[in-house]
Amino acid sequence: MPKMSVEELEQFLSEHFPYIDNRAMTVERVEDMSARVRLRYHERHLRPGGTISGASLMTLADMAMYMAVLGMIGPVALAVTTNLNINFLRKPAQADVIGECKILKLGKRLAVGEVTMYSEGDAEPVAHATVTYSIPPRRTSD
Amino acid sequence: MPKMSVEELEQFLSEHFPYIDNRAMTVERVEDMSARVRLRYHERHLRPGGTISGASLMTLADMAMYMAVLGMIGPVALAVTTNLNINFLRKPAQADVIGECKILKLGKRLAVGEVTMYSEGDAEPVAHATVTYSIPPRRTSD
Amino acid sequence: MPKMSVEELEQFLSEHFPYIDNRAMTVERVEDMSARVRLRYHERHLRPGGTISGASLMTLADMAMYMAVLGMIGPVALAVTTNLNINFLRKPAQADVIGECKILKLGKRLAVGEVTMYSEGDAEPVAHATVTYSIPPRRTSD
Amino acid sequence: MPKMSVEELEQFLSEHFPYIDNRAMTVERVEDMSARVRLRYHERHLRPGGTISGASLMTLADMAMYMAVLGMIGPVALAVTTNLNINFLRKPAQADVIGECKILKLGKRLAVGEVTMYSEGDAEPVAHATVTYSIPPRRTSD
Repeated sequence: MPKMSVEELEQFLSEHFPYIDNRAMTVERVEDMSARVRLRYHERHLRPGGTISGASLMTLADMAMYMAVLGMIGPVALAVTTNLNINFLRKPAQADVIGECKILKLGKRLAVGEVTMYSEGDAEPVAHATVTYSIPPRRTSD
Repeated sequence: MPKMSVEELEQFLSEHFPYIDNRAMTVERVEDMSARVRLRYHERHLRPGGTISGASLMTLADMAMYMAVLGMIGPVALAVTTNLNINFLRKPAQADVIGECKILKLGKRLAVGEVTMYSEGDAEPVAHATVTYSIPPRRTSD
Repeated sequence: MPKMSVEELEQFLSEHFPYIDNRAMTVERVEDMSARVRLRYHERHLRPGGTISGASLMTLADMAMYMAVLGMIGPVALAVTTNLNINFLRKPAQADVIGECKILKLGKRLAVGEVTMYSEGDAEPVAHATVTYSIPPRRTSD
Repeated sequence: MPKMSVEELEQFLSEHFPYIDNRAMTVERVEDMSARVRLRYHERHLRPGGTISGASLMTLADMAMYMAVLGMIGPVALAVTTNLNINFLRKPAQADVIGECKILKLGKRLAVGEVTMYSEGDAEPVAHATVTYSIPPRRTSD
């Protein structure tokens, strides 16, 4: 079961990533080996044609995986992304995007997960990513 | 040879992507099947531990490929990224990051390139990405 | 709904890919936007330590996606893989590996899917891949 | 500089991977942080249309990276691939394919490299891969 609640994760983010605008991205759910993060629709994320930028979706994928991993291992600020692969599937709607992360493997050194992203209210995904985090060595007493 | 100069690309960006801060990312060079884009060091890109965020490096990789592709095919705002795969290799220095893009394939429908990213002054790459763009169908008269 | 049955797909494979050993890889199920392919355990796929080779898992992922796509669009031998990204998660057991493919997007030009691979009888995946196929232009009358 | 010569690598392969046909894939060069492996043209690798299969190119990419890594760290049979991302760029010619691997990062736990693949005699790449290997923990005395 998760070691951190949604509230603890949001608190952790505001302490360690003060530049992240909490109104732009919010943690909605953290469960066993999974997390859901919401990217709020805002003109700032737009690209030509009025859609949310790829950069915003990549950030959402990375953050959803980070939240899912921290939820399981506790507040380890120095876990770092080593690989991210994203496929952009459809033009997002003018709506919030929901990132659903599912951890596929939680090893001692590497965690791998997938994140499916949906425009709120649509069943078809707008993007899909796989993300790998490297987990720093922990003391044996951990 | 490229169809657009650095000046034309910067002009295109400021018209179509007004939200991109020109001081944050600048096109430095566009040549045959390649481009170089600079991400300026700025506290806003930092993550815990004082390094440039993965999101900024992903945006740099995407932009370097976009500039290399537009340089070759001309101003096509609706070319879109379909896949981006990035490996984060080293902690970036507190310095600008240079993205060197080389196009591996420029087809009628898909363009594939690789982007190697370096902290200015360092020989070892901080990240490496491969990026695929889908190119919209053009009129036969093109 | 699928345009080809399991029997039609196996027939198509034996005509167009005569070098594929039908006893090594078999199509088990084709449904709407999904397919299941089985890789039979055999010493030939082993690597040091007695596990199924990465090459066999990559081939399984590619084949599962090919079957799911052909199932939906009909027998198009010239659909080709443009990108495959695979994460190896766990050492496979000495057992058959099942590849479950789900198509995430079936566009006119590109199809993107994900394949989760399990050792038969295990709940935890041994590998996960995303695969993109380029679909050749079809006549308007299609 | 490399710790293993081409002859030592070929010897290592024939001991640990007896099922690899030495006539199908041969190590041609191992240098500092790089390796070249040749995939011999043979009907067995063909797919519809007469080209070398994607599976053969994926195996070539994986093997070229494995040889480059073993060349640097010595004979560690249990180094395993954790991620492989490949873009298929052009239809290969009816000729041998050369895989040129360059290691981008050789860390204590992970090695990341890129492999560019060419049909012999052609300047344009037929495929490009990035490959990550996990390196098993070594004794402190190493």
